[in-house]
Amino acid sequence: MTAIPPSVPKMQYRYLGRSGLQVSAISIGGWLTYGGYIENEKTFACMKAAYDCGINFFDCAEGYGGGESEKVMGEVIKKFEWKRNDLVISTKIFWGQANGDMPVNNSGLSRKHIIEGVDLSLKRLQLDYVDLIYAHRPDKNTPIEETVRAFNHIINTGKAFYWGTSEWSAHEIAKAYSIADKLGLIPPVMEQPGYHLLRRDRVEREYAPLYEEYGLGLTTYSPLYIGILTGKYNDGIPQDSRIGLGKDPYVQQVGRTLHDPEFVAELEKVKKLKTVAEKLGCNQTLLALAWVLSNKNVSSMITGASRPEQIYENVRALDILPKLDTTVLKEIDDILQNKPQEVSG
Amino acid sequence: MTAIPPSVPKMQYRYLGRSGLQVSAISIGGWLTYGGYIENEKTFACMKAAYDCGINFFDCAEGYGGGESEKVMGEVIKKFEWKRNDLVISTKIFWGQANGDMPVNNSGLSRKHIIEGVDLSLKRLQLDYVDLIYAHRPDKNTPIEETVRAFNHIINTGKAFYWGTSEWSAHEIAKAYSIADKLGLIPPVMEQPGYHLLRRDRVEREYAPLYEEYGLGLTTYSPLYIGILTGKYNDGIPQDSRIGLGKDPYVQQVGRTLHDPEFVAELEKVKKLKTVAEKLGCNQTLLALAWVLSNKNVSSMITGASRPEQIYENVRALDILPKLDTTVLKEIDDILQNKPQEVSG
Amino acid sequence: MTAIPPSVPKMQYRYLGRSGLQVSAISIGGWLTYGGYIENEKTFACMKAAYDCGINFFDCAEGYGGGESEKVMGEVIKKFEWKRNDLVISTKIFWGQANGDMPVNNSGLSRKHIIEGVDLSLKRLQLDYVDLIYAHRPDKNTPIEETVRAFNHIINTGKAFYWGTSEWSAHEIAKAYSIADKLGLIPPVMEQPGYHLLRRDRVEREYAPLYEEYGLGLTTYSPLYIGILTGKYNDGIPQDSRIGLGKDPYVQQVGRTLHDPEFVAELEKVKKLKTVAEKLGCNQTLLALAWVLSNKNVSSMITGASRPEQIYENVRALDILPKLDTTVLKEIDDILQNKPQEVSG
Amino acid sequence: MTAIPPSVPKMQYRYLGRSGLQVSAISIGGWLTYGGYIENEKTFACMKAAYDCGINFFDCAEGYGGGESEKVMGEVIKKFEWKRNDLVISTKIFWGQANGDMPVNNSGLSRKHIIEGVDLSLKRLQLDYVDLIYAHRPDKNTPIEETVRAFNHIINTGKAFYWGTSEWSAHEIAKAYSIADKLGLIPPVMEQPGYHLLRRDRVEREYAPLYEEYGLGLTTYSPLYIGILTGKYNDGIPQDSRIGLGKDPYVQQVGRTLHDPEFVAELEKVKKLKTVAEKLGCNQTLLALAWVLSNKNVSSMITGASRPEQIYENVRALDILPKLDTTVLKEIDDILQNKPQEVSG
Repeated sequence: MTAIPPSVPKMQYRYLGRSGLQVSAISIGGWLTYGGYIENEKTFACMKAAYDCGINFFDCAEGYGGGESEKVMGEVIKKFEWKRNDLVISTKIFWGQANGDMPVNNSGLSRKHIIEGVDLSLKRLQLDYVDLIYAHRPDKNTPIEETVRAFNHIINTGKAFYWGTSEWSAHEIAKAYSIADKLGLIPPVMEQPGYHLLRRDRVEREYAPLYEEYGLGLTTYSPLYIGILTGKYNDGIPQDSRIGLGKDPYVQQVGRTLHDPEFVAELEKVKKLKTVAEKLGCNQTLLALAWVLSNKNVSSMITGASRPEQIYENVRALDILPKLDTTVLKEIDDILQNKPQEVSG
Repeated sequence: MTAIPPSVPKMQYRYLGRSGLQVSAISIGGWLTYGGYIENEKTFACMKAAYDCGINFFDCAEGYGGGESEKVMGEVIKKFEWKRNDLVISTKIFWGQANGDMPVNNSGLSRKHIIEGVDLSLKRLQLDYVDLIYAHRPDKNTPIEETVRAFNHIINTGKAFYWGTSEWSAHEIAKAYSIADKLGLIPPVMEQPGYHLLRRDRVEREYAPLYEEYGLGLTTYSPLYIGILTGKYNDGIPQDSRIGLGKDPYVQQVGRTLHDPEFVAELEKVKKLKTVAEKLGCNQTLLALAWVLSNKNVSSMITGASRPEQIYENVRALDILPKLDTTVLKEIDDILQNKPQEVSG
Repeated sequence: MTAIPPSVPKMQYRYLGRSGLQVSAISIGGWLTYGGYIENEKTFACMKAAYDCGINFFDCAEGYGGGESEKVMGEVIKKFEWKRNDLVISTKIFWGQANGDMPVNNSGLSRKHIIEGVDLSLKRLQLDYVDLIYAHRPDKNTPIEETVRAFNHIINTGKAFYWGTSEWSAHEIAKAYSIADKLGLIPPVMEQPGYHLLRRDRVEREYAPLYEEYGLGLTTYSPLYIGILTGKYNDGIPQDSRIGLGKDPYVQQVGRTLHDPEFVAELEKVKKLKTVAEKLGCNQTLLALAWVLSNKNVSSMITGASRPEQIYENVRALDILPKLDTTVLKEIDDILQNKPQEVSG
Repeated sequence: MTAIPPSVPKMQYRYLGRSGLQVSAISIGGWLTYGGYIENEKTFACMKAAYDCGINFFDCAEGYGGGESEKVMGEVIKKFEWKRNDLVISTKIFWGQANGDMPVNNSGLSRKHIIEGVDLSLKRLQLDYVDLIYAHRPDKNTPIEETVRAFNHIINTGKAFYWGTSEWSAHEIAKAYSIADKLGLIPPVMEQPGYHLLRRDRVEREYAPLYEEYGLGLTTYSPLYIGILTGKYNDGIPQDSRIGLGKDPYVQQVGRTLHDPEFVAELEKVKKLKTVAEKLGCNQTLLALAWVLSNKNVSSMITGASRPEQIYENVRALDILPKLDTTVLKEIDDILQNKPQEVSG
C-alpha cells in the first residue's frame, strides 16, 4: 500500500511500567473517532499508517461509540492479516450500557459486568484475548476486592495478559495493589490518565509514589487537550469548532466554556507556547506531543487521527523529543506556572 | 405484547449486599408455581410482565418442581430473546433428588453434588452460567470447607458469579467467611431467608452482625407468609384454601394448623394490621410487601405470582414504601409485639 | 432383568471419612476379576446385580488388567445407561506401564504420569471424570509436594472430585495433609488399605491418629484375604485352588506358602472362627465381611465377585453386622490374638 | 526398521532433579542441526535411532531454526506414531522473533510472549503440551515475578508439566524459587547450562547450593564444545571445519579464534586428554561424553547428531562411564587445571 514518508522517524518502544511488555511510545486510541465520527475506509487507512510507522498499541473501550470502536478494530486486524502477537490491543470496562436493555449491571466494575463485558468486547473485536484490560473508571459501589478478583479471573482464563485502571486516584490504585498482594493475585500494571501541558497534577504529583513502589506504567490520553494545545485557537475559538459548537461529548463532559475565566487564562498561556515551538523548529502540536513523551513515566501516549498524514506528523514528535532539555522544560514551566510541587516525604 | 399499566411505579434497584451487582428490589421466584402448579403459557406471561416492570432477578432452585422450574425459566429466556447480561438468574443446590435414582449423593452440599448439580441445573436452564448460586440449606454432614471450595470452584470455572446461602445460621455463615478468608477463596455474598411481618428474628437479630462486618446481602422469600399476610383469612380459614386443605408442601413443612394456639394468636395480629393498611390507602398485601422492603438489608424481595396482574399489583409496594416512616413502623411493631431485642455488644 | 432376591438386605451408606460423599458400605472392585479372569457377560451381570443391590461405588485402577478393568467398567455404565451422578467411580494411578512402550514415566506419581495416566484412564472409562482418584502406592522417588499439586490440578480441572492414597504410611499421609495445608491445596480424603481379620495393625493402630485429626476415610480391600477367611481351607489347601496353584498374581505378591509356619498358624486360627460364625447363624465369609464393616472408620469395604449370587450373598453381611456386639468382637480378638495395642498419647 | 547394533548399551534413566520425571541420561537436541542444517529424511532416521536406543527426551526451542526444529520434531512424532506419554518433549521461550513482524514482544520473558510463544510452539509441534518449558535466557527487563506467574499459568492450563531455566545465574534461579514459594506457585525444577570439560565453573561451583536446597536438575548442552573435545583439532584446525570457516552461528557467538591465546592453551590441554582416553580404551569423544555424565547433578546430557551411527556411538559413553573412577577423574583435573574451588560455607 502507501509507503510511509521517509521523513517519519523510527518508532520508539517503552516498557509498560515495570512489566515486560513493550508498547510504542506513540499509540492510537479510538475513542473520539473510530467507529463513530469518521468512515471505515478512512479508519482502515489510519490504522494501516499507524502499523507501518511501528505503532503496535491500539486502544479501545467498550464505551467508545457503543462498541463500534471495537468492531472496527476487529475488522482492521482481520483485513490486514496482522499477526496477533505483533499487536498490543486493549479495551476498557465500565460503560457498557449499549450491551443491554436493562438499566443496571451493564456498567461499573462488578464481577458480572467485568466478565460479561469482556466477553462481549472480545466478540466485537473478533479476538480470543486482549493484551490489556482496563477499569475505565473507579466504581465507588463495588468493593475493590471484587474488581481485583474479577480482573485476575480474566487473566487466569486467558482473556487478557495485564490489567490496569483509568483515572483512578492514587489511593484507589494503592488499595488494589495491596488487595492483590494480600490475596496473591495479579496486581494492576498501568493507569490511563488524561495528561497534557495543562493537566499535570495527577501524573506528576498524585501518582508520584506509585512509579517506584509498584512499577506503575502510564498510557496517557488527550495529549492535545481536545485540540486546544495545537494553537489553533490562538486567535480565538471559531463558532463551528468542536469547542465552539459545544456538541462534542468530551467537551460537554469537561464542561468548559469561554465564560470560564480560568479557561480563558489557559488559552492565553497556550498562545505563549508558540515562541517555544518556533525556537525548536516545530509547531505547537509537536511541542505538546513531545512534552508528554518527555515524562519517563509515560509508557505510551495515545493519540487520535482521522487521516494517515496526521499520524505521520504526530510521529515526528519523536524528532522533537531530544530537544526538550532541562532549559526548554524550565521555559515551559515558567510560562504555564502549573508545575506540581514535589511531595515531601 | 401487553403494555404494563401506567400506574405501575418505576422499579427500584439495590446492590446485593456489599457486592457490585444490582438486583431489582422486587423479584420473582418459582418455587411454588412455575414449572409446577400453573401452566407454561401463564408462566411465560408472568415472566414477561415481570421483565417489563424492570424486574431483573429470577430465582430458581434444582429442587423447585424437581427441576421443572429451571426448565421453564430456560424456555422463557429463549422465547423472549432477553440478553443474558440483562438478567440475574439464580439457582440453588441441595435438593437434587430428582436428578438421580440412587438414594444418595444427589442432595446436600458435597463437592460431588454441588458440581454435578450445577451442571444439571445449567443444562435445564439452557445457560452457560447462573449469576447467583446458593447452598439451599446447611448440610451438617459436609464440612463447610468442602462446600466453600466447591462453590469457589463453580465461580472459577465460570459457572456462577456469586455464591450464597439459604437459611444458614449466622454462625455457619461466619464460618464460611472465615474459611474463605483463610484460604483466600471467594466468600459468600448473600443469604436467602424467609422474612415477613411474623418472622423477624433471624433477619433482624441473628444476622445483625453480618451486614456490616461481611457486607451480607439478603434476597428474602415468603413476604406474604403463604398468603396469611394478605388478610384473606381475617374472617377465618376456608376449608378449600391451601392452608385449609393442608396439602401444600410448604404448609406441611411449616406444619402449622389451627390447633396451634400460637398460630391462632398470629392470625389475630394480622387482622389488626388492616387498620394500618387502610390509613396508608392500601390493602394488607401491599403493606406486608412494603414492610419487607423497608428493611435496608433486604437487597431483593422474592415474590410469586400466577397472573401478570399480581405482579403489577405487587410492584405498587414501591409506592407504599416511602409512607413507612418511623411512626408507622412503630405502630406495626406495637401490634405485632415481635420486634427482636437489639444485641448488646 | 433379574430381580434381586427379597432376602437381600437394604444397602447401607456411609460418608467417605469427613467428606460429604456417601459410598455404599459394600462396594465392588475389579482388580482380580473384571477385565481379566472372567468374561464380559458375567461381568455385566455382576455389575447390574451390584447396582440393583444399591451398591454405588465401583473401584478401578489403571493397573488392573492393564486397563481392561476400566474399559469393562466404561462399557457397563454405557450399557445400563446409569446416571453418572448416581455412581461413585474411582481409579488409581501408579502402575500404568501398559500405557506405554518406554520403560519410564508410565508409573509412579510424577506430575507427568498422574496427568497423562488420568487422561488415559478417563478415555478407557469413557468418562469426563472419576469421583475418586487414588495414588495406588507411595512413590519414594517423587516429592510428595509434586504429587499433592498434581492431584489438586486433577480436581481443579474437573477430572475428579476427591483424591486419596492406597497403602501409604500414616507418616506419608500426614505429610500430604501438611503440604496441602501449607499451600492451600485440597488434601487427601481417603486411604485404601488391605484390611481383614488377619491384617489389622495399619488400620487399627498406625492410622489411628488420622481419623479424628484429618477426617480420613477408608475404602478397604481384601476382606476375605484371597479366600482364606471363607474357611474353605479349614481342611487343607487343595492343589487346584488359587493358593495351591500359586499362579494368582496377588498370591505370588504376598508370597506366602504352606512352608511358612506363621501362615500355617494363621490358617489354624481361621479354623477356630467357624464356631463364632455358627453361633451367629452364618458362614465364615459373612462373619469376615461383617467384621470389617464393624470398624466405623471403614467407609466402604471393596469386595470382588464373579457371579451375581456372590454379591447377593455378600450384601447379607449387613444382616450379620448388628450381631457383632462387644462380646462377639472380644471372642474374635481372643481367638486371633492380633488386636493392636492402643497407642498412648 | 533398522535394528540398533547389539553393541549399543542399555539406556540409563535419571530423575530430573528432585522431580518424579525420568529422562534418558543421553538426549537429543535440535539446535544446530534439525530443521536447519540437515535434511528431514536424515533427521527422521536420527530420531528413530535415538528412540530405539531408549532416548526419551527430545529438546527443542522456539529459536532453533526459527521454529523449524519444532516443526520437524512434530513431524517425527506423528510419523512414527510414538505414544505421547512415552516422550519427554521440551521447548524454550526467549528468541521468538521469527513469530512476528514487529520488532518487539516476540522475545524475552514477558507474560505476553511466554503465553503466545508457547501457543505458537505447540502449534508447530502439533502437540497439546510439552513436558518441559524453559526460559531460554534471563530477561533483565521483565520482573522475575511476571515470568514465574506466566510459567505457572502455562502449567495450570495444561500446556506443560515442569518449567525451568537456561543459563540463568544461581542468584536468578534462587529468586525465582523464592517468589514461587512466597506466592505458592510451582517453582522451576531444572536448568539447562552449557557444560563440558572446558566449562565447569557454573555447574560445579555457582549452582552448587541449588542442588541440595531446591532439588535443581540439569539438562546440559554442548558436551563436545562444538567438536573441539572430539580431539579432531589435535593436529590443528582445518580451514573447512565449522570453526575454521567461522560461519557457524554458535562459533560466532562464542567468538573464539585461534588468535585468542587462552583458546590455544585450551586446545593444548584437549590434546593431552588423548592419553586418558586411550587408557580407557575409547576415543576422546566418548571420554568427554562420559565425563559429563559422571556428574551426578546432570539429569540428561543433550547431544546432537546428523547420522544414526553418531547416536549409537554416543550412547556407548554409558559403557565408559563406570570406568571414570576418582583416579581417572583426578588425572583429568590435573590436565585441565580448571576444577572449581569448593565454596566454603
